[in-house]
Amino acid sequence: MQQVNVGIVGLGNVGTGTLAVLTENAAQISLKLGFDLRVSAVCSRSVNTKQLPSSLGGVFRTTDWRELVARPDVDIVAELVGGTTVAQEIVNEAIARKKSVVTANKELMAASGAEIWDRAIAAGINLAMEASVAGGIPIHAVLREGISGDRITAIYGILNGTSNFILTEVEKSGAAFDDVLAEAQRLGYAEADPTADVDGYDARSKLAILAALAFGEKITPSDIYTSGIRRISPMDFQYAHRLGHTIRLLCAARQTPDGLILSVRPSLIPQSTILASVQGAYNAVWVRGHFGEDTFYYGRGAGPNPTGVAVVSDLMRVAREIRSGSPDRVSPFAHPRLGEYKPIPVTLQKSAYYLRFLVNDQPGIIASLSAILAAKNISLDAVLQLPSESKQSLPFVITVEPTSERAIREAVAEMSTLDFLTEAPLALPMEKAL
Amino acid sequence: MQQVNVGIVGLGNVGTGTLAVLTENAAQISLKLGFDLRVSAVCSRSVNTKQLPSSLGGVFRTTDWRELVARPDVDIVAELVGGTTVAQEIVNEAIARKKSVVTANKELMAASGAEIWDRAIAAGINLAMEASVAGGIPIHAVLREGISGDRITAIYGILNGTSNFILTEVEKSGAAFDDVLAEAQRLGYAEADPTADVDGYDARSKLAILAALAFGEKITPSDIYTSGIRRISPMDFQYAHRLGHTIRLLCAARQTPDGLILSVRPSLIPQSTILASVQGAYNAVWVRGHFGEDTFYYGRGAGPNPTGVAVVSDLMRVAREIRSGSPDRVSPFAHPRLGEYKPIPVTLQKSAYYLRFLVNDQPGIIASLSAILAAKNISLDAVLQLPSESKQSLPFVITVEPTSERAIREAVAEMSTLDFLTEAPLALPMEKAL
Repeated sequence: MQQVNVGIVGLGNVGTGTLAVLTENAAQISLKLGFDLRVSAVCSRSVNTKQLPSSLGGVFRTTDWRELVARPDVDIVAELVGGTTVAQEIVNEAIARKKSVVTANKELMAASGAEIWDRAIAAGINLAMEASVAGGIPIHAVLREGISGDRITAIYGILNGTSNFILTEVEKSGAAFDDVLAEAQRLGYAEADPTADVDGYDARSKLAILAALAFGEKITPSDIYTSGIRRISPMDFQYAHRLGHTIRLLCAARQTPDGLILSVRPSLIPQSTILASVQGAYNAVWVRGHFGEDTFYYGRGAGPNPTGVAVVSDLMRVAREIRSGSPDRVSPFAHPRLGEYKPIPVTLQKSAYYLRFLVNDQPGIIASLSAILAAKNISLDAVLQLPSESKQSLPFVITVEPTSERAIREAVAEMSTLDFLTEAPLALPMEKAL
Repeated sequence: MQQVNVGIVGLGNVGTGTLAVLTENAAQISLKLGFDLRVSAVCSRSVNTKQLPSSLGGVFRTTDWRELVARPDVDIVAELVGGTTVAQEIVNEAIARKKSVVTANKELMAASGAEIWDRAIAAGINLAMEASVAGGIPIHAVLREGISGDRITAIYGILNGTSNFILTEVEKSGAAFDDVLAEAQRLGYAEADPTADVDGYDARSKLAILAALAFGEKITPSDIYTSGIRRISPMDFQYAHRLGHTIRLLCAARQTPDGLILSVRPSLIPQSTILASVQGAYNAVWVRGHFGEDTFYYGRGAGPNPTGVAVVSDLMRVAREIRSGSPDRVSPFAHPRLGEYKPIPVTLQKSAYYLRFLVNDQPGIIASLSAILAAKNISLDAVLQLPSESKQSLPFVITVEPTSERAIREAVAEMSTLDFLTEAPLALPMEKAL
């Protein structure tokens, strides 16, 4: 075999970036591999009108992915269409035909990665999914190869670029969440329906994949406690800063003696931590290892070119394995276990908390709130009130010593019935150990 | 083959950490690999008095590395002795016997990595060296696999933990370099002879390896311009901070239209860059890719356990390749070229510069210095003088617009003859683009 042939399905952002990297870096790729990596076929609904890099030459074009997958001159199928319906069919068909697969599809791999991997191993092919999480950060290579000898105790991530862009804009500009979201939509940084990004579902899929890679467990995304950033306001950043912290949509997976606790939620993190320096649409992953201690990885979370690099790097690795006759033998969702893994409830997590209130000012407020906390054995850490213009909707903050999420939820539920509150308290964990 | 067998040569810090990771994580390693990774033999001059993890059981012990390498039950030799004399012999003998090799030896790989790799490929074995640079950061896996599809345009690193510890201590405490060095020696963070660390030679070896991995060139360490941190004083941090910067021993390898420029030298970097948050003995690598843009990697630079994780992760990868019958086929020092690669001289580099003077105060100083700069066509950016007690050894700083290193060196040489200077000017590049 003088070359390994790639068929690309999907010519949207990621497909276009992948073709750009493959063609512009072709000479270097051949040097690194010792053989050529050639695009033999492309598939897209708009393939006949799409402008392709001229160096691709007379590549086979089709609008029918089945035709591409069936071609004998396609050794690796790059599934870059996204979603879970057609994408699942493409991957299944490729595996059935014993073609290796590279995918950028976080949704599909979070929902069905374990099953897909099992079938890939049974078929004796290779599967790779670096681009499915944090496009520009090679976190799969890190977890599967680079630090595979370590036992991971925790992973923290900033995995949704849109949310991080919005949060850091609210932080810098002091503008309200809704205004920043509207501006992000106008600029194309946020989608018309921003739910997947700002409510944490996109980040949740990515955390499910990372946790699988790190802990060898098959995680069901809906088992991950998920809460979005819609309630975070400029005043929360003011209070957080005064407390030496900032606020990020933090994805966390922690190994505890009782099992894994997973969550995606806005959290206070110390301003001194390297994670706090992640601005705008960048992503980052913080890994805590039993032996290797802390490592940290940072880069573009998305974009055609950074994601294209991830896809091409996967194609190179898989091509090398094909040339070596070395199929995947162990699933990254691997450690064999009967059925699905159930993380333990987030209510068992212990943490310090930030409680922010909006009140109609009157005597006895602190007394009422602190009585509720005392009754739950929750110790106050600090009470903080920054100058405010309004007496009708006056913000102030209580921070509490580490306690269980369950106790905080019970306290917040009880507080929510108090008539001096103009909205329900906002409770955010404070991640002091980062 | 039910297992892959490892022989460990060297039971110092790294060897001890490697054994700890291998034995304590044995169950997880077997799950990830699908087979066992067993230590079959250990070698050390003090092997008879060394306490080994009890789970190693009746492992073969020897003080003679030749005996270990020759054993049929050793599939992979882990060379963890360091240095370039015996280590070179061990690696050569292992390759001659067609055993795969994992090494943590930066000095050896920087000096002879390209030749060793060529012999490994000719012998059909596997070679790995993750632990040779930035122990806890899996930067080899990142460059060889994770982002291998990209074309790297620059690498910046903080690669010597001792220097970074000393610099950040000088920065925080305001104590003099010599005092901080003495304290670091007392605490065991710096060696009795600190030359390799504080004069940049250790970092230089690491940069040579990283540049080889990133650019596919065989770099001779002595071709890298290297300057240490002995002249950096608390006042330099005061001035740097006032300019919005901090100072780090920066390793840099940049691709220019004319070739690679490599340097290891104390440099001003913006306080806002994520690289500036690297404190104490931590290491970091910043990679700029043509398509993937910026990625950043951070972790422990040394220590038995983090380095042990790197060695064990390499052992796992090599064991997998052995089981797949998949020897290394392309050298990371790879892109075939006749003879050695010569980086272009650092004097061709363009940069803004920080010039710090100590003067015996008298009229006309600025006029004399700025006349010299003007004669070299160097434009002043700022002149800065912080309050000082001494008139006899008065510090002040000039920053200049981007100019060539050659022009700055000529200017500094000319300035050094001026009789009002109490010591030669200190010139440091300002890395504004980080």
